[in-house]
Amino acid sequence: MDGKFISFEGPDGAGKTSVIRQIQEDLEQQLGKEKVMYIREPGGSRISEEIRQVLFDNKNTDMDPRTEALLFAASRRQLVVSEIVPGLKAGKVILCDRYVDSSIAYQGAGRGLGEQEIWQINQFAINGLMPELTIYLDIESKLGLERIAEHRSDQVNRLDKEKLTFHQTVRQSYLKLYNAHPDRIKLIDASQPLASVIKDVKMTIHDRFSDLF
Amino acid sequence: MDGKFISFEGPDGAGKTSVIRQIQEDLEQQLGKEKVMYIREPGGSRISEEIRQVLFDNKNTDMDPRTEALLFAASRRQLVVSEIVPGLKAGKVILCDRYVDSSIAYQGAGRGLGEQEIWQINQFAINGLMPELTIYLDIESKLGLERIAEHRSDQVNRLDKEKLTFHQTVRQSYLKLYNAHPDRIKLIDASQPLASVIKDVKMTIHDRFSDLF
Repeated sequence: MDGKFISFEGPDGAGKTSVIRQIQEDLEQQLGKEKVMYIREPGGSRISEEIRQVLFDNKNTDMDPRTEALLFAASRRQLVVSEIVPGLKAGKVILCDRYVDSSIAYQGAGRGLGEQEIWQINQFAINGLMPELTIYLDIESKLGLERIAEHRSDQVNRLDKEKLTFHQTVRQSYLKLYNAHPDRIKLIDASQPLASVIKDVKMTIHDRFSDLF
Repeated sequence: MDGKFISFEGPDGAGKTSVIRQIQEDLEQQLGKEKVMYIREPGGSRISEEIRQVLFDNKNTDMDPRTEALLFAASRRQLVVSEIVPGLKAGKVILCDRYVDSSIAYQGAGRGLGEQEIWQINQFAINGLMPELTIYLDIESKLGLERIAEHRSDQVNRLDKEKLTFHQTVRQSYLKLYNAHPDRIKLIDASQPLASVIKDVKMTIHDRFSDLF
């Protein structure tokens, strides 16, 4: 497969969305719009859309966390088959907003389902298709939550303790993954101003793929 | 949990449906209707129903076998949480028409997704909740398929080779499970006349649960 598969990871408040948007725009200018593909889970294909509806149906208040994790994995599987693999075969650069690492950090660690267990069901879902490069936007949990509160005025502007503990658990899990997979995962300090973060991300992508940026 | 959890397994044509129906009827007479629960996957709860709709939506012709396996596991998880566990807590006898062994035999072996892999995602789904007793209705594959053709006149009355190979693979997988878990799984010769099969099943259930039959 001729394409390039890059995933973006990080806790809420790290600025992931803004970073990807800029990277996508710049790559589209360099390569042409048809050579860049932005993917965000769950959704994309018709089947993933249907699974998404089950996941986000407000009436499903009694959904068990393990059911949820299996539905996310099912949706990811379909995304791999119907979007990512064809995109890579067509030589595209795939920018994936969250992938397996998110499931491990949020569901495995954050929700306490077990990082190893979540890795296994996702391994089944992706059948070996991991990104060649993962950009991990790291941010200290308190700062990340402060940023969220700042940008979303509709949210309660206060850091409750439970939320902070959850985010710290997620971050620790991300850091463990980073330490275990230093070749694939590159850590970017997301506490910097956005322009500096984007500059670092571009350099990191260029280091791996010398024909990009 | 005070209840009793019994699953019924076997390839198509083994007579599983007729056997369970009779066992259910007789147990209901012995214990009262409210003490016996028949469960068939996928479905049951609201969420399982929604997952079922995704699984059996005729428009979803491009569904990947792994997506399907993960959706079945998600549905099973919800069934465990919303039906089986509450039923067992209420002291009921649960008669489950297919459970984890079916997934291993049909998806793992038959569809070639890997028995170990299917076991792992199901292990995540059931989180240790295995039946205390599994009734495995064993039948030689050719005979099983002949029976199906006999009973369902709307089906093509001919054994194509591909079908036979698939059923033989499924049966071999069931037999492997039986050999690996002789305490849980009891094999019944389903080539006998129905009355003899039911008699054997009742004796087997009584051997495990002396207060039944």
